Amino acid sequence: MQFSSALLENAVNEFAKLPGIGKKTALRLVLHLLKQEPEKVGLFGEAIIKMRREIRFCQRCYNVADADICSICSNSMRRQELVCVVENIRDVIAIESTQQFSGTYHILGGIISPLDGIGPDQLHIEALIQRVQKEKIEEIIFALNPNIQGDTTIYYIQKKLQSYPVRVTTIARGIAFGGELEYADEMTLARSITNRLPVESYVSNR
Amino acid sequence: MQFSSALLENAVNEFAKLPGIGKKTALRLVLHLLKQEPEKVGLFGEAIIKMRREIRFCQRCYNVADADICSICSNSMRRQELVCVVENIRDVIAIESTQQFSGTYHILGGIISPLDGIGPDQLHIEALIQRVQKEKIEEIIFALNPNIQGDTTIYYIQKKLQSYPVRVTTIARGIAFGGELEYADEMTLARSITNRLPVESYVSNR
Repeated sequence: MQFSSALLENAVNEFAKLPGIGKKTALRLVLHLLKQEPEKVGLFGEAIIKMRREIRFCQRCYNVADADICSICSNSMRRQELVCVVENIRDVIAIESTQQFSGTYHILGGIISPLDGIGPDQLHIEALIQRVQKEKIEEIIFALNPNIQGDTTIYYIQKKLQSYPVRVTTIARGIAFGGELEYADEMTLARSITNRLPVESYVSNR
Repeated sequence: MQFSSALLENAVNEFAKLPGIGKKTALRLVLHLLKQEPEKVGLFGEAIIKMRREIRFCQRCYNVADADICSICSNSMRRQELVCVVENIRDVIAIESTQQFSGTYHILGGIISPLDGIGPDQLHIEALIQRVQKEKIEEIIFALNPNIQGDTTIYYIQKKLQSYPVRVTTIARGIAFGGELEYADEMTLARSITNRLPVESYVSNR
């Protein structure tokens, strides 16, 4: 691409560094911003710079926060004895959007994956054990993606938690709502038969 | 979407204002930036703010520029007597990328479209007529999109230019390279037959 303005070229190149944004899309976005008022574009740029510079990570659960402790951990209405263990911030946002969970979180920052060189020491696992030691946690709920790495991580942490009086659970896996039996993979289908539910509990949860 | 950080929420909302960027994509982009060094994110934000604040429009051709006159108009190697009339900056970038055009440009800033409330006065048509009066322009090449609005705009400007000794041409329309005859629309196919070329000139242009 040939540009007649270095300012334009620079802005397009910066946008094109973002994942999934090619040169053509970057140009479209920059030309859109060029049509906006300078004040609005200033707000856009400053929101991003400020976010990166000032955002912190909760000292307790490692969620993104505007202070030392995130708004979920510091909310006294939430059940502090219930901790949902997730891989990353995106999972917290997904679960929060269901508005069905009233406990707190613990963000591991990844999952154990030897092939990617990620071992237990790179994750916030030790911090979770310390929380179980210090806080009055009654239940740890694992909400990790259902794959080998997720299961390995659950197995590793569960072993570490064996000596503590804490209930350890995992979110249910099975056929998704709206999913069709014949298209489900064998693993999911097999597990959903093994972990079958009494009809009464299924009906009452609807 | 529920966020535990106002800084994060603000950045996501700003990204989601861009065309074609939804909330989920905006979150993905912001979380990517969150993983980068603050300095790099600063460069990103500042490039965009600086672009919007400092970019200018060439006083001669209305292209984007870093000075009063754009780098194409001020380039003495380019044929100043040849002016290609386009709708917008994107078209300039597309033509420049072919590296086949050595003249200058004139950006109309749109095309005549009564349904969208765009008349000749909202476009840089008068400035084009003045350029023809003042500069030694030999040929005006219209490179507008081949539709009714484009043709209307060409017709309107051509009428205004009738009293000046300037050659007026338009880029060729026809079957695109790699295109297939049977899938071409009737209008294009009909025009490509009407405006057929002698085989000698076709072969020599390859």
